[in-house]
Amino acid sequence: MGQEIDRVRGLFFDVFGTCVDWRSGVIREGEALGLDGVDWPALADAWRGAYQPQLETVRSGARAWTLLDELHREALDALLGDFGLDALGDAERAALTRAWHRLDPWPDVVEGLQRLKRRFVVAPCSNGHIALLLNMAKRAALPWDVILGAELARAYKPDPEAYLRSAAAAGLEPGEVLMVAAHAGDLVAAARCGLRTAFVPRPAEHGPDGVADRPPERVDVIAEDFLALARVLGA
Amino acid sequence: MGQEIDRVRGLFFDVFGTCVDWRSGVIREGEALGLDGVDWPALADAWRGAYQPQLETVRSGARAWTLLDELHREALDALLGDFGLDALGDAERAALTRAWHRLDPWPDVVEGLQRLKRRFVVAPCSNGHIALLLNMAKRAALPWDVILGAELARAYKPDPEAYLRSAAAAGLEPGEVLMVAAHAGDLVAAARCGLRTAFVPRPAEHGPDGVADRPPERVDVIAEDFLALARVLGA
Repeated sequence: MGQEIDRVRGLFFDVFGTCVDWRSGVIREGEALGLDGVDWPALADAWRGAYQPQLETVRSGARAWTLLDELHREALDALLGDFGLDALGDAERAALTRAWHRLDPWPDVVEGLQRLKRRFVVAPCSNGHIALLLNMAKRAALPWDVILGAELARAYKPDPEAYLRSAAAAGLEPGEVLMVAAHAGDLVAAARCGLRTAFVPRPAEHGPDGVADRPPERVDVIAEDFLALARVLGA
Repeated sequence: MGQEIDRVRGLFFDVFGTCVDWRSGVIREGEALGLDGVDWPALADAWRGAYQPQLETVRSGARAWTLLDELHREALDALLGDFGLDALGDAERAALTRAWHRLDPWPDVVEGLQRLKRRFVVAPCSNGHIALLLNMAKRAALPWDVILGAELARAYKPDPEAYLRSAAAAGLEPGEVLMVAAHAGDLVAAARCGLRTAFVPRPAEHGPDGVADRPPERVDVIAEDFLALARVLGA
C-alpha cells in the first residue's frame, strides 16, 4: 500500500461472496419450500457453478444483454431435473430465483460499510442488476451511496466496461477507486483498468468443504474483513 | 388519495427545486468568487432559464446524449458576456458549473427522506447525472437508496423513458411508484406513464420575487413539505 491509496475516493464492492453469503441464503430459501430429500447445498453449488458460463454467453456477444434474474431462472430450470425437482411449479421457481435478492451479509459488512461510508463513496460494482441489489440492500441495511455495476454498464465483470463505466458514472477516475472483492479474478480485471484493489478473504463462501479464493499476486490491500479494511483506510 | 396509493413501494423525487434550492446555491457559489458588481441572482435565473431549451435539443434528437455538467457549462459560457464576465477563466467556469453539485436541501428534506426511507425505496429521478447527484447526496446527507433518472435512461424528463426505465430498474411497476415534485409538468408526465403523483410546493424556488409552480389539475397527494408527505404516507 503506497501513496496511490491516498487518491482513493470511492470503494466499489463485489457483492455475491464478498458482501453476502449466497450459499447459505440459497440453501435457506430452498429448505423453506418444505420438500423432503432435496440436497440444497449441492443445488446451491451447482446453481452458482452455472453462473460464469452463463455470463460468458453475454460477455462473448453470443446473446443480447440479459439481467441476472433471467439467467438465474434459466440455470435453475436446467438444474431442477438433476435434483428430482422437475415438478416444481412456476411460482416456486420464481420465489427461489428471488432468493438471490434475499441474501444475508457477512457479520462485519453492515458496520464496516457504515464506517467506510463516512469517508468514501461506497457502491456495489456487481453483476447483480439494480433491482436485485436494491432489494438486497433494503432487506439487509446495506448503506450504499449509489448502485453501480453491470446493469449500468450493460457489461458483465470482468469486462473492463463494468469497472470503467461505473467509475465514470460516479465521477471518479479509475485510480480514485478501490475495488474490494473476495475473488482474485475480479481484482486482476479491476487492476488492469487502473483501479486500486483490496482483497477480503471469505473462507466460508463455498461452505465447510469448499475452497475459498486466494488473493491475487498483486493487490494494494489485504484485510481480514470490512472492519479491518476500515481501520487500514482510516475510516 | 385512494387505494392506489397503497400499492406504492417506491418514491421518486425530482431534485432541482423540489429537494434542493438551486437558486441560493448558485448565487452563493457565484458570490464566493469575490468579484464586484455581478448580479448573481439574475445570472442564476438566466442559467436555469437556459435549462429546458438545452434539454430539448437532446430530447428532440438534435444532439446526442449529453450529461448535465456539459449542458450547464455551455449555458454558462453563453451567458457570461451578458454579465460582464467574459474574462472569467476556465478554472472558475468549471468551479461554477460544479455549484450544481453543491446545492443545499430545503430544511425538511433530510429528515423527511430519512423517515420515508424506513417504509419506501427513496430515489432521485432527476435530469442530473449520477455523479452530480452522488456528490450532492454525500455533501448534503441525502439518504438515497439508489440513484435513478436521466443518465440511466439516457432520456431527459419529461420523456416517458426517464420515468419508465427508472421504475423498471428498481423492479417496480409504474403504479408502484409515487413521483414527488414541485413542478406540475413533471407530475403530468409521470402520471401519463402510470406513476402516482405528489406535489410539494416550493414557494421560494424562484426567489423572493419569483412565481412558484402550482399543482397540476390531477394529483394523488399534495403535501406542504417532505415531513407532511411522510405523515400522509404513514412513514
